[in-house]
Amino acid sequence: MDSRTGLPVVGMVGGGQLARMTHQAAIALGQSLRVLALAPDDGAALVAADVQYGDHTDLAALRTFAKGCDVVTFDHEHVPTEHIRTLTDEGVKLFPPADALLHAQDKRIMRERLTALGAPNPAWRPVTTPAELVAFGEEQGWPVVLKAARGGYDGRGVWMVADAGQAAELAATLLAGGTSLLVEERVTLRRELAVQVARSPFGQVAAYPVVETVQRDGICVEVLAPAPALPEELALAAQQLAIDLATALGVVGMLAVELFETPTGLVVNELAMRPHNSGHWTIEGARTSQFEQHLRAVLDYPMGDTSLTAPVVVMANVLGGEPGGISIDERLHHLFAAEPGAKVHLYGKQVRPGRKIGHVTLLGDDLDDVRARAARAARWLREGHSEREE
Amino acid sequence: MDSRTGLPVVGMVGGGQLARMTHQAAIALGQSLRVLALAPDDGAALVAADVQYGDHTDLAALRTFAKGCDVVTFDHEHVPTEHIRTLTDEGVKLFPPADALLHAQDKRIMRERLTALGAPNPAWRPVTTPAELVAFGEEQGWPVVLKAARGGYDGRGVWMVADAGQAAELAATLLAGGTSLLVEERVTLRRELAVQVARSPFGQVAAYPVVETVQRDGICVEVLAPAPALPEELALAAQQLAIDLATALGVVGMLAVELFETPTGLVVNELAMRPHNSGHWTIEGARTSQFEQHLRAVLDYPMGDTSLTAPVVVMANVLGGEPGGISIDERLHHLFAAEPGAKVHLYGKQVRPGRKIGHVTLLGDDLDDVRARAARAARWLREGHSEREE
Repeated sequence: MDSRTGLPVVGMVGGGQLARMTHQAAIALGQSLRVLALAPDDGAALVAADVQYGDHTDLAALRTFAKGCDVVTFDHEHVPTEHIRTLTDEGVKLFPPADALLHAQDKRIMRERLTALGAPNPAWRPVTTPAELVAFGEEQGWPVVLKAARGGYDGRGVWMVADAGQAAELAATLLAGGTSLLVEERVTLRRELAVQVARSPFGQVAAYPVVETVQRDGICVEVLAPAPALPEELALAAQQLAIDLATALGVVGMLAVELFETPTGLVVNELAMRPHNSGHWTIEGARTSQFEQHLRAVLDYPMGDTSLTAPVVVMANVLGGEPGGISIDERLHHLFAAEPGAKVHLYGKQVRPGRKIGHVTLLGDDLDDVRARAARAARWLREGHSEREE
Repeated sequence: MDSRTGLPVVGMVGGGQLARMTHQAAIALGQSLRVLALAPDDGAALVAADVQYGDHTDLAALRTFAKGCDVVTFDHEHVPTEHIRTLTDEGVKLFPPADALLHAQDKRIMRERLTALGAPNPAWRPVTTPAELVAFGEEQGWPVVLKAARGGYDGRGVWMVADAGQAAELAATLLAGGTSLLVEERVTLRRELAVQVARSPFGQVAAYPVVETVQRDGICVEVLAPAPALPEELALAAQQLAIDLATALGVVGMLAVELFETPTGLVVNELAMRPHNSGHWTIEGARTSQFEQHLRAVLDYPMGDTSLTAPVVVMANVLGGEPGGISIDERLHHLFAAEPGAKVHLYGKQVRPGRKIGHVTLLGDDLDDVRARAARAARWLREGHSEREE
């Protein structure tokens, strides 16, 4: 309890853009997010009043941080499960709980659990020997998708394996390095979808409209809300699936369920248990943002209204370009002049080519129009991008 | 320039709720508002990363604060004009400029200027002797409204004077205390309106829809956006008046023009040159909040879209009740359970009876419904309020 405000203190482990935007939402609720950051130039450390420094893999640092927090939650999935269990045993309230978070930390455990729950998986198998990978490929047809069970994101930790020769060699190398692996069939996908739900300890669940996520080179570049031309029954099925998963896994906070839409229905791709890039559109596009909703969930407040604020909402990620060129400040000028309705979110990050440095959200009535404007806005904000690339 | 982000640094003098909500808006723009606060428990100091402490009447403190800021702006009107002039002469960029801000600091100077500009004033006169006040009352009819030229807010510094006897006594006392005074006719008012505009140094001006402000005991309790049943031509006239004033006075940043709607037209009540309580509804109710707009203006960015996000937006202030009773945390629970769409903003303030400790905004289609829900939400959040008062 913060004696100055009479409100509980929420701590977030990790100081990236998710903590940054959660702090922004916390301010309205009378809160000030307590952040465990790695360095003073972390996105959240640049803007939050209450920052501690320490490594999220260091139990002592986590323990110190948790002191005085009424509840602790996470900006990422990289806190070791055993630390979460230890602190939980010591009486710290951590959300999502270790037993839930495990399914966002380890893809193999997730697939096992989804299989047990009867949720829609692609064909998959754990890979503990090169022979198992080869056998799976021969059985399902090449190529297949080899995945590291832990640590991958934005396309990292995922390999498209073309044939038996490549499979044997790659699996041997990775297994020798100690990487826990699984393999999945290469799904014939129409597109990727995502659905956000929040769940409170009390058990209340609130689902957001299903969105389409557009990837390029394994990185999400665009989110369209609601997912265009998605049949009502498929949208309801996706929301129900996310609600069922949140409940079955005991999630507390936001759950993002990333889905493949295939000719035969929906298949789960990945889970994230925190505010997620596929939900950034909710800041202006939904009556309650995923960041406020995550806070409400971990505080066990009732969930907020998830309805859309416009018929069409498009979020485009701003990726870092080559250094140099027109400054970000000048780029903002140009964008705001051209698009008075563009809602910009910059994360305070140093620019590296391909790194997500912000996002921009546009709202409107016509999908093609809003989408084109959002894409152009994101391109304009990309540092190092020259007009010739238009 | 912040070398970590490549973006200019905005400093705000004053650490109240306006700075708190401006910081919230700054985060999206890649900024972190630098705040000059009085104490660590000021609303903005509780949430901002970059806080300095010092008194806004202390030139040395202001000078130290301004160092390293690309632009300095204000959370209130209480910085002495001479300090703003001194720092401007020393090369500090301060917005709004001293010559503009003066009209929000001094009601007498405002009335003189509005008269010179031909803007709609009530009948008024400066009061330098008790006899002048009495003469004005005899001429215009009692009661009249006596005002301190400087320092009043929320009904303070305003006296309703009933007759010549009271006038002579009150004026003598106040003038002896060194208070600069003016008197205004008591306007027959239908209701109070307000209109927000933003102006950039480049000269771009953007106006928000005209709103109705509802006062109780001299304190704004409710804002209805857009102002219900306001004839189109009157709305346009109010917006044009605000745009003309912003331009004529050389305002940079937000300008709030508080208006009386009278049987014979609109009359200016007061001016504020900063984000203002009558514009808090813009956080969720307009595509660009007044806080983001103020930042865009002082940074000389192009102005954002000011259109409404719903047909009806109602903001209700949350006032402090008697201490004790149900905690604010528990009140939030109840409110969120009953109103999933209520958008709450708490300022991190210690509760004192009648003090504004936050506000709540509701959006919808039906004015009576939205208004009733907003008023109930604000009542529920009022500490010390018991159910019997319902």
